[in-house]
Amino acid sequence: MEMKLPGQEEFEASSAPRNIPSGELDSNPGPGTGPSPDGPSDTESKELGVRKDPLLFIQLNELLGWPQALEWRETGRWVLFEEKLEVAAGRWSAPHVPTLALPSLQKLRSLLAEGLVLLDCPAQSLLELVEQVTRVESLSPELRGQLQALLLQRPQHYNQTTGTRPCWGSTHPRKASDNEEAPLREQYQNPLRQKLPPGAEAGTVLAGELGFLAQPLGAFVRLRDPVVLGSLTEVSLPSRFFCLLLGPPMLGKGYHEMGRAAAVLLSDPQFQWSVRRASNLHDLLAALDAFLEEVTVLPPGRWDPTARIPPPKCLPSQHKRLPSQQREIRGPSGPRLTSAEDRHRHGLHAPSQELQRTGRKAPWYPSDFLDALHLQCFSAVLYIYLATVTNAITFGGLLGDATDGAQGVLESFLGTAVAGAAFCLMAGQPLTILSSTGPVLVFERLLFSFSRNYSLDYLPFRLWVGIWVATFCLVLVATEASVLVRYFTRFTEEGFCALISLIFIYDAVGKMLNLTHTYPIQKPGSSTYGCLCQYPGPGGNDSQWIRTRPKDRDDIDLGLINASLLPPPECTQQGGQPRGPGCHTVPDIAFFSLLLFLTSFFFAMALKCVKTSRFFPSVVRKGLSDFSSVLAILLGCGLDAFLGLATPKLMVPREFKPTLPGRGWLVSPFGTNPWWWSVAAALPALLLSILIFMDQQITAVILNRMEYRLQKGAGFHLDLFCVAVLMLLTSVLGLPWYVSATVISLAHMDSLRRESRACAPGELPNFLGIREQRLTGLVVFILTGASIFLAPVLKFIPMPVLYGIFLYMGVAALSSIQFTKRVKLLLMPAKHQPDLLLLRHVPLTRVHLFTAIQLVCLGLLWIIKSTPAAIIFPLMLLGLVGVRKALERVFSPQELLWLDELMPEEERSIPEKGLEPEHSFSGSDSEDSELMYQPKAPEINISVN
Amino acid sequence: MEMKLPGQEEFEASSAPRNIPSGELDSNPGPGTGPSPDGPSDTESKELGVRKDPLLFIQLNELLGWPQALEWRETGRWVLFEEKLEVAAGRWSAPHVPTLALPSLQKLRSLLAEGLVLLDCPAQSLLELVEQVTRVESLSPELRGQLQALLLQRPQHYNQTTGTRPCWGSTHPRKASDNEEAPLREQYQNPLRQKLPPGAEAGTVLAGELGFLAQPLGAFVRLRDPVVLGSLTEVSLPSRFFCLLLGPPMLGKGYHEMGRAAAVLLSDPQFQWSVRRASNLHDLLAALDAFLEEVTVLPPGRWDPTARIPPPKCLPSQHKRLPSQQREIRGPSGPRLTSAEDRHRHGLHAPSQELQRTGRKAPWYPSDFLDALHLQCFSAVLYIYLATVTNAITFGGLLGDATDGAQGVLESFLGTAVAGAAFCLMAGQPLTILSSTGPVLVFERLLFSFSRNYSLDYLPFRLWVGIWVATFCLVLVATEASVLVRYFTRFTEEGFCALISLIFIYDAVGKMLNLTHTYPIQKPGSSTYGCLCQYPGPGGNDSQWIRTRPKDRDDIDLGLINASLLPPPECTQQGGQPRGPGCHTVPDIAFFSLLLFLTSFFFAMALKCVKTSRFFPSVVRKGLSDFSSVLAILLGCGLDAFLGLATPKLMVPREFKPTLPGRGWLVSPFGTNPWWWSVAAALPALLLSILIFMDQQITAVILNRMEYRLQKGAGFHLDLFCVAVLMLLTSVLGLPWYVSATVISLAHMDSLRRESRACAPGELPNFLGIREQRLTGLVVFILTGASIFLAPVLKFIPMPVLYGIFLYMGVAALSSIQFTKRVKLLLMPAKHQPDLLLLRHVPLTRVHLFTAIQLVCLGLLWIIKSTPAAIIFPLMLLGLVGVRKALERVFSPQELLWLDELMPEEERSIPEKGLEPEHSFSGSDSEDSELMYQPKAPEINISVN
Repeated sequence: MEMKLPGQEEFEASSAPRNIPSGELDSNPGPGTGPSPDGPSDTESKELGVRKDPLLFIQLNELLGWPQALEWRETGRWVLFEEKLEVAAGRWSAPHVPTLALPSLQKLRSLLAEGLVLLDCPAQSLLELVEQVTRVESLSPELRGQLQALLLQRPQHYNQTTGTRPCWGSTHPRKASDNEEAPLREQYQNPLRQKLPPGAEAGTVLAGELGFLAQPLGAFVRLRDPVVLGSLTEVSLPSRFFCLLLGPPMLGKGYHEMGRAAAVLLSDPQFQWSVRRASNLHDLLAALDAFLEEVTVLPPGRWDPTARIPPPKCLPSQHKRLPSQQREIRGPSGPRLTSAEDRHRHGLHAPSQELQRTGRKAPWYPSDFLDALHLQCFSAVLYIYLATVTNAITFGGLLGDATDGAQGVLESFLGTAVAGAAFCLMAGQPLTILSSTGPVLVFERLLFSFSRNYSLDYLPFRLWVGIWVATFCLVLVATEASVLVRYFTRFTEEGFCALISLIFIYDAVGKMLNLTHTYPIQKPGSSTYGCLCQYPGPGGNDSQWIRTRPKDRDDIDLGLINASLLPPPECTQQGGQPRGPGCHTVPDIAFFSLLLFLTSFFFAMALKCVKTSRFFPSVVRKGLSDFSSVLAILLGCGLDAFLGLATPKLMVPREFKPTLPGRGWLVSPFGTNPWWWSVAAALPALLLSILIFMDQQITAVILNRMEYRLQKGAGFHLDLFCVAVLMLLTSVLGLPWYVSATVISLAHMDSLRRESRACAPGELPNFLGIREQRLTGLVVFILTGASIFLAPVLKFIPMPVLYGIFLYMGVAALSSIQFTKRVKLLLMPAKHQPDLLLLRHVPLTRVHLFTAIQLVCLGLLWIIKSTPAAIIFPLMLLGLVGVRKALERVFSPQELLWLDELMPEEERSIPEKGLEPEHSFSGSDSEDSELMYQPKAPEINISVN
Repeated sequence: MEMKLPGQEEFEASSAPRNIPSGELDSNPGPGTGPSPDGPSDTESKELGVRKDPLLFIQLNELLGWPQALEWRETGRWVLFEEKLEVAAGRWSAPHVPTLALPSLQKLRSLLAEGLVLLDCPAQSLLELVEQVTRVESLSPELRGQLQALLLQRPQHYNQTTGTRPCWGSTHPRKASDNEEAPLREQYQNPLRQKLPPGAEAGTVLAGELGFLAQPLGAFVRLRDPVVLGSLTEVSLPSRFFCLLLGPPMLGKGYHEMGRAAAVLLSDPQFQWSVRRASNLHDLLAALDAFLEEVTVLPPGRWDPTARIPPPKCLPSQHKRLPSQQREIRGPSGPRLTSAEDRHRHGLHAPSQELQRTGRKAPWYPSDFLDALHLQCFSAVLYIYLATVTNAITFGGLLGDATDGAQGVLESFLGTAVAGAAFCLMAGQPLTILSSTGPVLVFERLLFSFSRNYSLDYLPFRLWVGIWVATFCLVLVATEASVLVRYFTRFTEEGFCALISLIFIYDAVGKMLNLTHTYPIQKPGSSTYGCLCQYPGPGGNDSQWIRTRPKDRDDIDLGLINASLLPPPECTQQGGQPRGPGCHTVPDIAFFSLLLFLTSFFFAMALKCVKTSRFFPSVVRKGLSDFSSVLAILLGCGLDAFLGLATPKLMVPREFKPTLPGRGWLVSPFGTNPWWWSVAAALPALLLSILIFMDQQITAVILNRMEYRLQKGAGFHLDLFCVAVLMLLTSVLGLPWYVSATVISLAHMDSLRRESRACAPGELPNFLGIREQRLTGLVVFILTGASIFLAPVLKFIPMPVLYGIFLYMGVAALSSIQFTKRVKLLLMPAKHQPDLLLLRHVPLTRVHLFTAIQLVCLGLLWIIKSTPAAIIFPLMLLGLVGVRKALERVFSPQELLWLDELMPEEERSIPEKGLEPEHSFSGSDSEDSELMYQPKAPEINISVN
């Protein structure tokens, strides 16, 4: 079962992980709490209970139709990004990064400098506000009245709920209705209202040409108490800011652009922060100048100003907008060191402190069940249950295939249920899903052929291996060896993952091709032709008939016989005997199996890609992509049932008993094996322990990464202890072995994400945390256990479909690792390579050299895997750690930092080398260090499951 | 054969057609000619022989290593876009749009204002230049000497040819060599040199911190005569501009950013133009201010300034950078009207003037052969030959299939060669490739079943249809009816294309499923089991054997026989007789055919997508994608040959004679048909004439579009005349009918594009024109004729492979039309829809309504196609024109302008409606009208071929 890791595609610099500063738009801590941009970081501020500024919704109302048909119309709105009203199409544009012309900002500045600035205006209604704003000397009383009437006129908002047409319909200017201060019904019904967090405030910019004004009129108002200003804003929010920009007609789109500039300014978090605290005009202008200091400028000849830039996946982080003095003090090497640390905090080595504070899970135990009382947990259970059952079927089927029925689907269901449920109840990290994983499957297959080579009774031998593995694991727990996981860098992990994936792919294709031997393809003129039904002769004796031809071909010339052409089953029924090679061949099965294999593979791959397509609502897409394996299996079964051919099917026992005939649920300790094999089993057990340790601990580290914001702590040693105990249990019962499965556990966590629902257009939802509890996992495994009764249905699953899913798992796991992406770089001309961060920092030849070394290692592993000594491959995986250590002599720590991660010793060496010649130049490096601040998303799924 | 139309993906606003102003970088008119940005358009200026400014290569050399190890290092370069040196990775970054910080531009401005500005400096060498630049009062003689030595020091350039490591290697400051004025060898070897057009000039910006300076030193030099300044620049180009920005250390990356700002300024075409003509400091600063007036500003909170923006596909056009006064004078409705005209000039209705000036091709005739003497024509011949042969095989095979051998592969080869070559010699537009097309194929299939329904002799009947079609076409030529093509808007074209594509898809799948009837799948227990070889009994009489069982099942109970199990062919050889249903079934063929079908389809689809992948050099990608059909056929044949199954193969006569047995090369005028059928043939001929007219003329219009810059004019009437004559010829010979094929002709033109080779990083090559000549087409068809000798090889092509290619053609053609994209919109939630221009201008419900009407029309056409009256479908296609006319009552002209195109009457109505309320608002529309200036790429391929 392969599911997409969150953010695993985010390898490219251009699609860096989501990094929207969550402080800006966070409904959770309630209204009225906001970040101070120079203050502590968002998480800290939440902990300290610092009040945040509310979110600001900004709207631009333009005065259109001068001179005859004056009306206000909303033409743009901003929360984080700009949305423009497409007048002709009657829809809001997609959210985009606002772009401004510099002159409009400068014009706005001078208009504000000369205009009216009211900070902490006490107006309580639109009428009062309008009266205050129009109290300008330059206006004659008559003009003032006209202007007031105009400002009180109800603006036309595009009403999204009506859908088809803008609601203004007619071009007649509508006068404000009798009760103009009361918000309109559509203001409440606006779908945007649900999206904005409670406590959000509004800012309105009014701009336009007004012929009767002799000179421009600019006003900027900050209301003391936010108040709902009638129908001024599209959504009925209390208004905080009000900006008026009117004047005589001028060339171009002067007031439109000025209005946009004012709105963009107000939507800037830094400007917002300053202007909320401004006490006079000077502060306001200083905030505007600070904004201008920081803008990014695109040259006119190389950028079309009308092009719309989609919202970036990554917004500039708060720390960048510190006053420049503060930033400089850090010195040239400061950011680089910080970023390296930062990277490690988010990388594999993050929870080194976690590795120490294992245990202490008891205080959380009650909440582990109470926290599950949420609707989201039901959908999580459904999703993870289906994934687990699919996994159990696939791995059960393949294990049964590989071990001649020593394992099987029934064992897989039972074992998954028992081990999983037990783990959920006892483990330190109950979000982990225990499951059959690729490495263990591969090892079991090798162990089985090993035991067969020595004519051993498999299950008793396996029991001893299990006993030894449990022992070794307990030793590892006792010695707190989990800290060693820090030596498994990405290099090792990816070698591990790539080898297992390749074995999956090779096995899937191999098993498929094997089918063509079992069900040979009938070529024209091949000898598998011909079949008849021969009855005993009249005299009951074949030999009495004289052969009319010499018996030149054995078994082909039959001589005189009493025959019919009944199909073999009917023939036997009628007392005859089917004769001829054609009676035993089943035609069409080979190609049909191939079709099923390819169909399930490609269908699963295609469904997985649906998630990123533009079609269907995101719920449907997510469903299709999450359940890609299940759906692919169902499609394969449907196709098979439709044609009704005798394809090989999944072996399922008819009743609730072990798949292997003649054994009970308890494995006898010795069977027919000599006693000393129970000691010799320690050797393969050592190898398996390495695998189990690597698989279990790397998964645990990935799951407990910083970015998931787990509150209840991890339990590395406790988890390994549980795995060891369960190892013993499953060996005694002759069930498959289980460790934590990376991908399915990550999917479990992902389905339990708490996210902010309120979400501005163009913004991605904020991640708030994970619902950490034991109940979802427990229910999943209880359901899995109950699914044993599904067994009679499972026998309709054709094996080629499972092989297809097997192939899909291998390909999906292989394509998710960075190594594969670097191998692809080998095939790309330098010019067409994507703008990867590592390519900016490591020479291409060094990147290729690193990839080549990995390829060679993988080749060696493959060769070992193909020899009779295949079973020692876990040791060789461990050898990758040594190779990685040796690479320190070939690559500089900086290069390894980008290509891999640092091993514990190297980490210490970095500060000394921090001022290498390459980095001492103040030239052009600090901009890259900014990029390193982006939190690293989990990239690796170590095990194929 | 489906090939990608140039620019057919460019439907989205964000990926608008290539619009790099070709004036900026055009090697063709020789050195020293340049555009004046306010002057006439590029094409005009070329015609008028206006001198253009040379291209400018700008390089930033930074002073690094203060205080110990001072050295100059090139850290950035600009031609159109910015390339940054990735110091650590030792490579140039991908070209990107330069972004600047506003303060650095302002600091640069004040430094230049106070600094030294030398315009038309007469320096002839770097030494002279340095002396002039350092002649500043503020410098003491000692400092001046130090500064001069520093400026003469050889800068370190990253040398791309060495590849692995930057060539500076050591950190010791290298002194300039003895002969510092001579350019270095690597300057000549620089690969960029080949890319820059002859006559290009260089500008160098030197920037950095220099501790011994008391105050900043700024200098801007324009050299009177461009001169090679030793090893100053990376490429040995004559330098025109020189900018020095040095000063005491300041906070931040002050000088680095200022240097970048200076370089970006110099790379701006408008600034370049001004500064080349500036006569004093004031002009220089005015140019800088003009630049600032036009910059695009991105707000700091919503855009990460370190993000790199890839070069846009579409640069702002020159007309946008007119001085704003001039732009304003046009008035609000001006641009919209212009853009509507513009769109029409580039749209389908473009060559209405072409439709008048038919003929007059004779003066070009000699050059039609001489212009072909270019290497590019050889590759074009190879490409088009393979495409034509693939087409001939596929269509020949399918025609043979559909007409029971009345047509066939041999006829297809012969006909293509004869008709194509004749057309190339006579036609008005010799770039057109005559070929079998989808509509004609569909019609021929219908005509054949029609003639069979009436028990007609097909070929004589067909001859009369051909005679009538030729007559009707000649009437159309005589009445100059080609002008009517303007009534076929995109609505009609897409209905046409969609119907034909759907028929292709339906037929391909249908034919494939038919194979499963011919080669049934053997289900377990099916009665197709059993086969034996029965020999005549000893007495030579079967009946003498007593049947031991009652004959309850006919043909199944055989009684006593003399039998063997020899395969059927050997059985017959040995004098026996194969008996039993199993003898006649060929197993495995059905599924294997399905596999071949799917393989060839998906392989062709995948190869087509290779073009846009990042892998392999572009030549390889282009090759794979261009020859996708050929490669898919070859793969299918290889797979088939490898397994050696008896799949159905392409029917090819053993010798050079018509596929239909017993007919000569000339079709008899009546055959066995009653004479009056020759008159009745006029009716189907009328229908076919409609098809031929639509297919031929729409192709001709697309080929003669403005954007291909054809010099020798079109020949609409002459082409139709040729088609009519060839119609007659092919009917008499019983060969397939031919018209111009859109896609293959476009591919022909595309392979003959003349493009500028010199190309700045990040820029797309400039399109210069098409090599218009008759020779490539002629050679292609001569080769096709010679390929008749390939016939013995063709019989190895399995039919399922051809069905797969057939499906691929249908799917590819269907996916290329806008209609399909609008159908997809129906499935997308509004939020996820791409930012299409039409969605900005037409309400979504109206778009959906238009799509729904098209779907209904298509449904009706499909129903008619499924009835016995199917043959009248061309009339119904014509009916689409009527439906389109009726749509004028439902949609406004503005909506139709975006959804379709305007019909001749509507065009006249637009100016009156030009000032509709929607557009009278000066509000926010003009930015969209800018987008409409982008030339429209050919989007439609009307015929499936």
